Amino acid sequence: MTVSNEVSALDQLLVDGKLAADCPSRIVLDHITSRWGVLLLVALSGRSMRWGELRRVVEGISEKMLAQTLRTLEADGIVDRAVTPSVPPRVDYSLTERGRELVTHLLPLMGWVADNADDIVAAR
Amino acid sequence: MTVSNEVSALDQLLVDGKLAADCPSRIVLDHITSRWGVLLLVALSGRSMRWGELRRVVEGISEKMLAQTLRTLEADGIVDRAVTPSVPPRVDYSLTERGRELVTHLLPLMGWVADNADDIVAAR
Repeated sequence: MTVSNEVSALDQLLVDGKLAADCPSRIVLDHITSRWGVLLLVALSGRSMRWGELRRVVEGISEKMLAQTLRTLEADGIVDRAVTPSVPPRVDYSLTERGRELVTHLLPLMGWVADNADDIVAAR
Repeated sequence: MTVSNEVSALDQLLVDGKLAADCPSRIVLDHITSRWGVLLLVALSGRSMRWGELRRVVEGISEKMLAQTLRTLEADGIVDRAVTPSVPPRVDYSLTERGRELVTHLLPLMGWVADNADDIVAAR
């Protein structure tokens, strides 16, 4: 069942046969697979967006969760925040190089979810 | 920046230009990218496991969250629960065919996380 690249990804994550609670992978995983983190990454995968656009595209996100999730992804070096000093100032959010690399691995997973979600929800 | 397979995954997820809150993809995404969902999928990617093994491998998961997350993934047709009627009964959890397909898309993302987590956390 298990092909070789799966084994290596798994092996990299295991410490003494465990997915250790205090390992950096668990921290980063929590950020990018948080409910809002993954949706913001998908939203930004196509192009940069302003605050109001992100609120509209990621339906249901609150101002507070948008601010908090963007701050986390910015601190992780995944999202870039660019301020244009106009009146009022314009703020654009985009993926960094690291973020773009990340979404190349995230989008195939999202494609699978999009392909299978109707069947999964219908069969519940 | 955007390559063609990224556009198609994104397009599949957008309804009227939005990641709609009530769409099946959002429901399934919440299940598989929940904190414990993703770790259980990684743990089961190599082989089937019993309850106690899952508790040990997915460090930090509570009995309650393990039960709840396994139930959700079972209802989604991603995890299979097999009971052997021994004394005491033996229960094995494994990925279904759908689950194995899912992890082929999840593991490359996990590999990226494992490769980059140290750098990301060190730079924060």
